[in-house]
Amino acid sequence: MKSRATAQFRTAAEPPVVLPDNLVDLAARLADAAGSVIRRYYRTPFAVDDKPDSSPVTIADREAEAAIRAILANERPADGIVGEEHGTTNGDADWLWVIDPIDGTKSFITGRPTFGTLVALLYRGRPVLGVIDQPIVGDRWIGAAGRQTLLNGRPARVRACPALGRATINTTSPDLFGPDDYAAFRRVAIGVKLTMYGGDCYAYGLLAAGFVDLVVEAGLKLYDYAALVPVVEGAGGIMTDWSGAPLGRGSDGRVIAAGDAACHAEALARLAGSSG
Amino acid sequence: MKSRATAQFRTAAEPPVVLPDNLVDLAARLADAAGSVIRRYYRTPFAVDDKPDSSPVTIADREAEAAIRAILANERPADGIVGEEHGTTNGDADWLWVIDPIDGTKSFITGRPTFGTLVALLYRGRPVLGVIDQPIVGDRWIGAAGRQTLLNGRPARVRACPALGRATINTTSPDLFGPDDYAAFRRVAIGVKLTMYGGDCYAYGLLAAGFVDLVVEAGLKLYDYAALVPVVEGAGGIMTDWSGAPLGRGSDGRVIAAGDAACHAEALARLAGSSG
Repeated sequence: MKSRATAQFRTAAEPPVVLPDNLVDLAARLADAAGSVIRRYYRTPFAVDDKPDSSPVTIADREAEAAIRAILANERPADGIVGEEHGTTNGDADWLWVIDPIDGTKSFITGRPTFGTLVALLYRGRPVLGVIDQPIVGDRWIGAAGRQTLLNGRPARVRACPALGRATINTTSPDLFGPDDYAAFRRVAIGVKLTMYGGDCYAYGLLAAGFVDLVVEAGLKLYDYAALVPVVEGAGGIMTDWSGAPLGRGSDGRVIAAGDAACHAEALARLAGSSG
Repeated sequence: MKSRATAQFRTAAEPPVVLPDNLVDLAARLADAAGSVIRRYYRTPFAVDDKPDSSPVTIADREAEAAIRAILANERPADGIVGEEHGTTNGDADWLWVIDPIDGTKSFITGRPTFGTLVALLYRGRPVLGVIDQPIVGDRWIGAAGRQTLLNGRPARVRACPALGRATINTTSPDLFGPDDYAAFRRVAIGVKLTMYGGDCYAYGLLAAGFVDLVVEAGLKLYDYAALVPVVEGAGGIMTDWSGAPLGRGSDGRVIAAGDAACHAEALARLAGSSG
C-alpha cells in the first residue's frame, strides 16, 4: 500500500495537488522524534563545537537528525535525504526530505525557545510539505501543497498589509548579511514601521500566523528555507528569492517572505535598488 | 504584623540584608496576576496604540499593570509605585515598586514568547527585589537581596567567561542605540565570539542562568532595568551603568550586565573608548 502510493507519485511529473495524509502525518512524527531529543538537552550543559563555517553544532543537533533519519530509513527507504548535520543520501530521488534538526542553534545554545526543527519534503526540487516545530513552547506549523497551513491544529493565515510603511519586518541578525545584501535589506527596513531581530525559522511561522509582515534574509541554505515555503504559501503568503523567483534546490539563499502581495512587490523593488 | 514589618524597614537607613519572605511572595503573586491577563491576550487580535515616544502599547499592558496595582493598593498601601503605563504614585516612599507589565511589547505584539513582566522593589532608590516572568513559556526568575537567584525554583548562576573573546553578547536591537552609543556597543561586540539580538529582559535572565555572558543596552528606563539588577546580582553577576556605577533611580539608562567580572571590566574599557 505504502509502496503503491510512493510509485504513483514517483511517476507524476508535477507535484501532488493535495499532499496525502500519510506524508503529513509522517512529517509530524519526524518533528516529534526530534523534539524528544531536543527537550532532553535544552538548557543542560553540553559541548558546543564549531563547524568549518564557524557556526555552532551540538550533540542535540546530531542526535535529533539521527532520530529523524532512522524513521525515514525504515518507512521511506527509497526517498532521498538532505540533512544539515549528516549530509545527503540518495540526493537524486524524486522525493527528497530536507532536514534542519535545530534551525537557530545559536538560540538553542543560549537557552532561548525560539529555535525550531525544520522538516521539508521536496518533489522534484519543489517544496511540497514543511513543518516548523518549536519543541519547548510547543508551537508547530504544518504547511503542505493544497492544504491550509495549521498552527497547533488551527488554521493560520497571513494578515493584510497593503503598504510597506505599515509593515513589521523581521530578520535574524544584521550580522548575517554581506555588505551589499545588508545595504539592500536596509533599503527595505528604512521604509517599514517596525523592525524585529532574532527568531530564525520562528519569524516565518509568525508571518504565517499574521503577526509579522515581511522576513528578509540572505545566506540561507536549502535546509534553512525549504520547510518555510509550504508553511508561508499555505497561509496565503508569498515566499520567493530576491528576484521574485520561486524557491527550490539551486536558489541562491536570498529569501523574502511576505504576507501581502503589495508588500512583497514594494520590498522586491527596494531590494533591487530602488528606494521607493 | 504586616505594618510592624513595614515600619521596621522604613526606619532602616540601609536596604535589608536579606529580603523577607512575605515581600518575595508578594512579588511572585504580582507576576501571577499580570501573567493571567497577558495569557488571555497573547496572539489574539487587539489594538496596538502608539505612545508619544512611538513605542507600542496594548490593552494587555494596561490591564496587567492595573492588576498589579490593585494588589499593591490593598496589601502595601503605604508603598510607592512607578509603572510604565499608569505613572507614579507616592514616588517618595522608601519602598517603591517599579513595574513594567510587558517589557518587550514589540515581541508581545508579534506573537513571540520572549517578552516579560518585570516587578522590582526599591528601598531608598536601590533595587532589592526583582522578578522577570515569561508567562507563555513559564520561565520565572526571582532575585532578592541576600538570596540566591532562582529560575523556576532552582538556583540560577552565571557562568565563568574570563575573556571577552569567548563571550556571547546580547542586545535587543541595534536600532535602540543612538549613533555614539551604537559605536560604543560595536567596540565591545567586535571583540566577542557570538552576538545575539532580541529578547529584552529575557536576555538578562539567560545571563543569570549562565547562557549569555554580556548584555549591553542604552536608552532604558527605570522600569526596564530595576528588576534585572537583583536577578543578575543574586546569580553572581554584575550589573552597572556604562561607567561601572551601581544602577538605581537617576541612572542614565545605559546598562551593562556581565556574568564574569573580567568580562565586565574588559567591556567597560571598550565602552569608554579603548578598543582593547
